[in-house]
Amino acid sequence: ASPIASSVYEPESFSARSLSPTDWSVSDVVRYFTAAGFPEQAAAFRSQEIDGRSLLLMRRNDVLTGLSIKLGPALKIYEHHVKELQKTHNRK
Amino acid sequence: ASPIASSVYEPESFSARSLSPTDWSVSDVVRYFTAAGFPEQAAAFRSQEIDGRSLLLMRRNDVLTGLSIKLGPALKIYEHHVKELQKTHNRK
Amino acid sequence: ASPIASSVYEPESFSARSLSPTDWSVSDVVRYFTAAGFPEQAAAFRSQEIDGRSLLLMRRNDVLTGLSIKLGPALKIYEHHVKELQKTHNRK
Amino acid sequence: ASPIASSVYEPESFSARSLSPTDWSVSDVVRYFTAAGFPEQAAAFRSQEIDGRSLLLMRRNDVLTGLSIKLGPALKIYEHHVKELQKTHNRK
Amino acid sequence: ASPIASSVYEPESFSARSLSPTDWSVSDVVRYFTAAGFPEQAAAFRSQEIDGRSLLLMRRNDVLTGLSIKLGPALKIYEHHVKELQKTHNRK
Repeated sequence: ASPIASSVYEPESFSARSLSPTDWSVSDVVRYFTAAGFPEQAAAFRSQEIDGRSLLLMRRNDVLTGLSIKLGPALKIYEHHVKELQKTHNRK
Repeated sequence: ASPIASSVYEPESFSARSLSPTDWSVSDVVRYFTAAGFPEQAAAFRSQEIDGRSLLLMRRNDVLTGLSIKLGPALKIYEHHVKELQKTHNRK
Repeated sequence: ASPIASSVYEPESFSARSLSPTDWSVSDVVRYFTAAGFPEQAAAFRSQEIDGRSLLLMRRNDVLTGLSIKLGPALKIYEHHVKELQKTHNRK
Repeated sequence: ASPIASSVYEPESFSARSLSPTDWSVSDVVRYFTAAGFPEQAAAFRSQEIDGRSLLLMRRNDVLTGLSIKLGPALKIYEHHVKELQKTHNRK
Repeated sequence: ASPIASSVYEPESFSARSLSPTDWSVSDVVRYFTAAGFPEQAAAFRSQEIDGRSLLLMRRNDVLTGLSIKLGPALKIYEHHVKELQKTHNRK
């Protein structure tokens, strides 16, 4: 909930942010992580066919070992993005 | 328990739905997941020789890592199908 | 505890059944799983050098991922055999 | 909290120690583990792109299996360094 | 704590037994497991650079999957040796 985390979490250049993650296509997911500063890792979400509904089901270990991405970015992707998107979504 | 989940869970074209999953052969399992919209992933259930009795014993991690299928579909297969079949079965 | 499970669990053709699993050699373990209907998977117990004492120490995940056998049979081997042998043994 | 552990934990030759780990770059992380006596393993932190913020998110299993380093050094790196850095950081 | 387990646990031919495991070098660890009846598996402790301090930090899963040794011996190594050494050490 720090200012940095929330600015990362809602990247200005991500145009699908008005949609609920439930409605994101695989391409929306890829655009989200590209805009969030992880263009290399974003491709892994496409190759694993992860759309918004799958994204909301991911756990820490799925992000760290199921995407075959580097550990450093994976830790931030889970902690500052996937977990935050899930919290926001479940709060509604 | 949403209307969408339940329509996916009982695909009209799946003819074995009158049988209990306990009695499903490996081919019934394959036909179930094909009818449910996962024709590519269905083949993994055949190659891992999963019949109805094995299906009812599967946990989240078995579906995600034991079938060598893509993570996005795997997450949905577990959450909307395997888990639901097990709940319905255990309720009886 | 169904009649089917218990007939699988004590296959008539398995001659070591009078011994406690603690005393089973690797070959006894292999003969047990062959007689129980898993001749292909039985070989994995030999190649991993699992005798009766090791068998009694196995957990679900060891059977599912440590033997490199197919997931369908592995689920049944653990649930209907390894777990049952351990229960019976620990009851004594 | 033994004298040995704490002298390892704050290696004299590590110049970034005045910074909070949150501010460490990937190179600071690499220099930390090199100074701490793990020069071979330090390279794995670079190749996995782990900066200070990622380091503070690492769990035991991430260090042991996510870095592809030898188990002996990995156990010490987690127990005497990663865990201690996290404790000190969270205390503040 | 059976007579068999304790004779395995303190092999007569292991000369480092007067030292606390904390002080064992990698070579002491290798000699311990060789004397305990696991000469083939002992080599894995050397290649993973496990000294006494690392040995005392090992958990079940580290022994079973982190050493790349056969499952049968690994189960006994953990249960009858690593776990017992840790218990004895922590009791002091």
